[in-house]
Amino acid sequence: MAPLRESSGDPVLPDPPQGPLHVARARASFPWKELALFWEGEDTLRFKKAIFSALENDPLFAHPRGSRLSVEKYQELNFLRCKRVFEYDFLPVGDMLDSLPRVLALIECLGMYDWSLAVKFFLHVLEFIIHSPDFEAAKFWVGNMGKTATHAVVFAQLYTPGGQCHGLHPFLVQIRDPKTLLPMPGVMVGDIGKKLGQNGLDNGFAMFHKVRIPRQDLLNRSGDVTPEGAYVTHVKDVGQRFSESLGSLSSGRVAIVGMSVVNLKLAVSIALRFSATRRQFGPTDKEEVPVLQYPMQQWRLLPYLAAAYALDHFFKSLFLDLGELQQGLLGKDRSVRQAELGREIHALSSAGKPLASWTAQRGIQECREACGGHGYLAMNRLGDLRDDNDPNCTYEGDNSVLLQQTSRYLLGLLARRGPGGARIESPLKTVDFLDGYADILGRRFEGSSPEDLLDSSVPLAAYEWLVCYLLRESHQKLSREKRSGKSDFEAINDCQVYHCRPLALAFLELTVVRRFHEHTHQPRVPPPLRAVLRRLSALYALWSLSQHTALLYRGGYFSGERAGKVLESAILALCAQLKDDAVALVDVIAPPDFILDSPIGRADGELYKNLWTAVLQENKVLERASWWAEFAVNKPVIGSLKPKL
Amino acid sequence: MAPLRESSGDPVLPDPPQGPLHVARARASFPWKELALFWEGEDTLRFKKAIFSALENDPLFAHPRGSRLSVEKYQELNFLRCKRVFEYDFLPVGDMLDSLPRVLALIECLGMYDWSLAVKFFLHVLEFIIHSPDFEAAKFWVGNMGKTATHAVVFAQLYTPGGQCHGLHPFLVQIRDPKTLLPMPGVMVGDIGKKLGQNGLDNGFAMFHKVRIPRQDLLNRSGDVTPEGAYVTHVKDVGQRFSESLGSLSSGRVAIVGMSVVNLKLAVSIALRFSATRRQFGPTDKEEVPVLQYPMQQWRLLPYLAAAYALDHFFKSLFLDLGELQQGLLGKDRSVRQAELGREIHALSSAGKPLASWTAQRGIQECREACGGHGYLAMNRLGDLRDDNDPNCTYEGDNSVLLQQTSRYLLGLLARRGPGGARIESPLKTVDFLDGYADILGRRFEGSSPEDLLDSSVPLAAYEWLVCYLLRESHQKLSREKRSGKSDFEAINDCQVYHCRPLALAFLELTVVRRFHEHTHQPRVPPPLRAVLRRLSALYALWSLSQHTALLYRGGYFSGERAGKVLESAILALCAQLKDDAVALVDVIAPPDFILDSPIGRADGELYKNLWTAVLQENKVLERASWWAEFAVNKPVIGSLKPKL
Repeated sequence: MAPLRESSGDPVLPDPPQGPLHVARARASFPWKELALFWEGEDTLRFKKAIFSALENDPLFAHPRGSRLSVEKYQELNFLRCKRVFEYDFLPVGDMLDSLPRVLALIECLGMYDWSLAVKFFLHVLEFIIHSPDFEAAKFWVGNMGKTATHAVVFAQLYTPGGQCHGLHPFLVQIRDPKTLLPMPGVMVGDIGKKLGQNGLDNGFAMFHKVRIPRQDLLNRSGDVTPEGAYVTHVKDVGQRFSESLGSLSSGRVAIVGMSVVNLKLAVSIALRFSATRRQFGPTDKEEVPVLQYPMQQWRLLPYLAAAYALDHFFKSLFLDLGELQQGLLGKDRSVRQAELGREIHALSSAGKPLASWTAQRGIQECREACGGHGYLAMNRLGDLRDDNDPNCTYEGDNSVLLQQTSRYLLGLLARRGPGGARIESPLKTVDFLDGYADILGRRFEGSSPEDLLDSSVPLAAYEWLVCYLLRESHQKLSREKRSGKSDFEAINDCQVYHCRPLALAFLELTVVRRFHEHTHQPRVPPPLRAVLRRLSALYALWSLSQHTALLYRGGYFSGERAGKVLESAILALCAQLKDDAVALVDVIAPPDFILDSPIGRADGELYKNLWTAVLQENKVLERASWWAEFAVNKPVIGSLKPKL
Repeated sequence: MAPLRESSGDPVLPDPPQGPLHVARARASFPWKELALFWEGEDTLRFKKAIFSALENDPLFAHPRGSRLSVEKYQELNFLRCKRVFEYDFLPVGDMLDSLPRVLALIECLGMYDWSLAVKFFLHVLEFIIHSPDFEAAKFWVGNMGKTATHAVVFAQLYTPGGQCHGLHPFLVQIRDPKTLLPMPGVMVGDIGKKLGQNGLDNGFAMFHKVRIPRQDLLNRSGDVTPEGAYVTHVKDVGQRFSESLGSLSSGRVAIVGMSVVNLKLAVSIALRFSATRRQFGPTDKEEVPVLQYPMQQWRLLPYLAAAYALDHFFKSLFLDLGELQQGLLGKDRSVRQAELGREIHALSSAGKPLASWTAQRGIQECREACGGHGYLAMNRLGDLRDDNDPNCTYEGDNSVLLQQTSRYLLGLLARRGPGGARIESPLKTVDFLDGYADILGRRFEGSSPEDLLDSSVPLAAYEWLVCYLLRESHQKLSREKRSGKSDFEAINDCQVYHCRPLALAFLELTVVRRFHEHTHQPRVPPPLRAVLRRLSALYALWSLSQHTALLYRGGYFSGERAGKVLESAILALCAQLKDDAVALVDVIAPPDFILDSPIGRADGELYKNLWTAVLQENKVLERASWWAEFAVNKPVIGSLKPKL
């Protein structure tokens, strides 16, 4: 493959620097640049290179960032960096709807640098406000509101003269004077304080005391008030208004899937490069082996590498699906298909956000632990990744609560079908398999050796059975609870833990597995990449499925000791097959060293050199503490303050 | 029960303040003060009260603490607080070995306030150095070394004249001048930089360049050098020297079990008080219910409450076992029993640390998520708890690696027994059940309704089967791997993931379950406490066991759909039975509000009042940022820096 070059003549994908990781790279079974090209496409690779280079060459983006700064300094730098990104104008706002892959790449590049920056930037681009629950009477958590926002969109009950209430409507409210940044009369606005992560972003609260809002500042997409005080709406029924809002809810959740995937990619990149260079113990006292040679270390990390690939593909495909939905909304498409698409994407994003954010949360934690004490040093970035990923589990809907949206969608499909009812199908075909519900429930696992499981078609079939089983169990349980006299509210709540919750997650895992399976088995996959991609697909599928082994046995899909054992053996076999490809697979997804910003994750693998350099560059490493004299002068008088015990 | 009073007349257990949590407390099935007395004992309650009061009344301990301070300020405050704790002299060092329950209470009280303080204090008390892997040539991670230590114990190869090497020996090395805190000649000593947590503690590194150490600074407990340069040792063989060091390794690991339990107690206290007051959704639009009323929220949190009690009891009992071991070491007990006790405690602490630190890690994360956005605010402390708990998974041996010590111990017992061999028994009787290995493997689960599982004797029996099954599987797998021609090193590594690792964890879970079961079923449990304690015991046991359902089915202990379903139903039934006791159970283990330091976890349950007060007390909440003019004056010129894409 001829090297891709930028117009400057620089290669778009430069060779990694020489160093100890060279040995690990030489063992890879495939050419990593070819995978990068297949995975990203040429335009995206060039675009990402341009963004990364601009940041690296601009002193404003020089380190430090994240938790090693004071909150005030961090917010200032983040604000200045955000302004600078506008000056770079990598992708004009007007072009975004027509360049979805570049939007994806821009989110990813800025997020890989720092989520505080990416979120602040996109909040500006979209005039978009993070929806958060009320903090009783006040608005709380609003992004950019803590220190900088001058206007806010506030949802309030709209009353027209005569006292009639038309429900929640959005209003544009000025909260600060843009010249002085002082609050407007009647507005109390402030910063909510330090959070676990993303502290470059100023989240704020606001309280309003009889603030007057001009009529024209009602944001009138779905309803308006005439100068005479009458209410008019072009949306016929509340249901349709609700359905429109589903689309915008999905956008936030799909974005969070992407944020989670980026965090997971960064974490596995750091941990796998570390594991390929860090040596510990060995067959003899003299010889220490890289920790990635241990099956335990492989099993801890490689499934998360596979998950990063599988979820990355899922995110990109869901983002394109969402683009289709948004095009329909803009074009005022009122077709049945458009409504069905909205429901399907709502179901996918409502379980996709939990699955992706939890996988990232657990993956980052595993990476942190797999790097031992080095992972606990702030400079190696795994702490910031964990902290910045954490809100993904909570905002835009708590994960556990959100999963109910997906199980409700699936139960609704089953109910609509009924005996002899309509086919089950959906625009994106994620639920079409449910049409074979009864047949699928009759399936049994037939593999008898680990080799039978080395392709993702086997776990795919098992997942179809699992989703049908959980759907039947959930449906029966819900009916029982209702028949026993419980209210709908109570009955649904009593079905969540062991029924609806695993149903929603298993359905989403199936969807991710199916899409990754199809992507890795399509004819246009270049032959040198087929084996490694199929291994990733099988590993992610089997590893995910192995969380459900108890249900596979309980429902009779598995029987006998052998089934469970071959599943385990297949996972370990895939880990062993992939271990020599791990560093090259990381080269495909890791950003340049400057962006990755982790001494133990640098591409050359000069672990100790990089660590020492970074340690000695920290603040006041060798200096005495400013309070040293306190230590040397005033010795404690032991017991001088002893209380009566 | 007459109220306990201090000599001042104040009650040792004051009533909780009035507030919204009063309703939840009134529903409890048992008197919480009686449980506090049973759980802690009167002397410990008084002792803890005295420590907590001293800290609360001393302005030096006023907030803030933890991640809301700069590292430099935090280290200074932590150092001053540590000095002050010496002045309080709550428990003279010389009394510690005779007052183990008070040592426990002191660790817990200081740790509940702040682990940075507790660790700094105990590092001083024990002249104890955290052992950490070499950072190639340097010592790295040493607690207190970053800014303050003047002397360090360094392990180095001891060579005597003639070049003979006697292995690793400890030396006392002066690293800083105590008057100036400047480094000694030839010593480079510094701070390793910011960590994810415990930043009040100054961890350091040191490198030595031809530093001379006087002969008398060889710490000569096991070996010495005469003035003429000859090596003498009173320890006969390397094996015994190794066995002595096991005892000191166990101390660190047992302490970490306790640290993890404290973190878990604090986290569940915060999350459960929040959940009993935070209302969301409800059967009608008008009526919102506390989130603890939802079975999902109960299932997310109550098993961790049960785990906090079960592991707390395990920790205390293991600490007393360790005390017995240390007494033997001090008394130079060379009996077989003493050696066996050392091995057993080594096995228990090597899996106890992983089990406790991981349970705390997952529990804190669940609590963080269960509190939604409020859990993500730094002031509510769940972030600091997670960060301060995190090193527990890593130091004193990485959890995953450490588990090998326990599985090796169990496999060794099986091998020693052989066909017709000696009884399997141990000083603490944790492995005596293995003597019935073959019979136990023949057992089958017999419960058929959830009621059959509401006592922890049922999961206890299941755990015995599970450990025997995993022991047999591990033994067979290891033999197979060795027969296939693999080296011992390779064979053992290939048995970890699905064999030795779950074996070690299941054995420890069984031990925790057994000790908690016995503690809650003993005749001296006051009758009003029996029901609630037995429910906690059953919930912890069943919930832990439910992670292994796949193995119970695979190995034939469970069969049919019903077994798995009754296990799930029993867990949910216990959660429902315990939900009204949750707040009172928290009152028993939570420290006073000042120590807990979490607005959403305060004992009165005035959620929003407490939050608003705390938010408005934060730094510069309503002030403009110092850099406000940058925002108002220099608008970005969009695209002015646009790179060529």
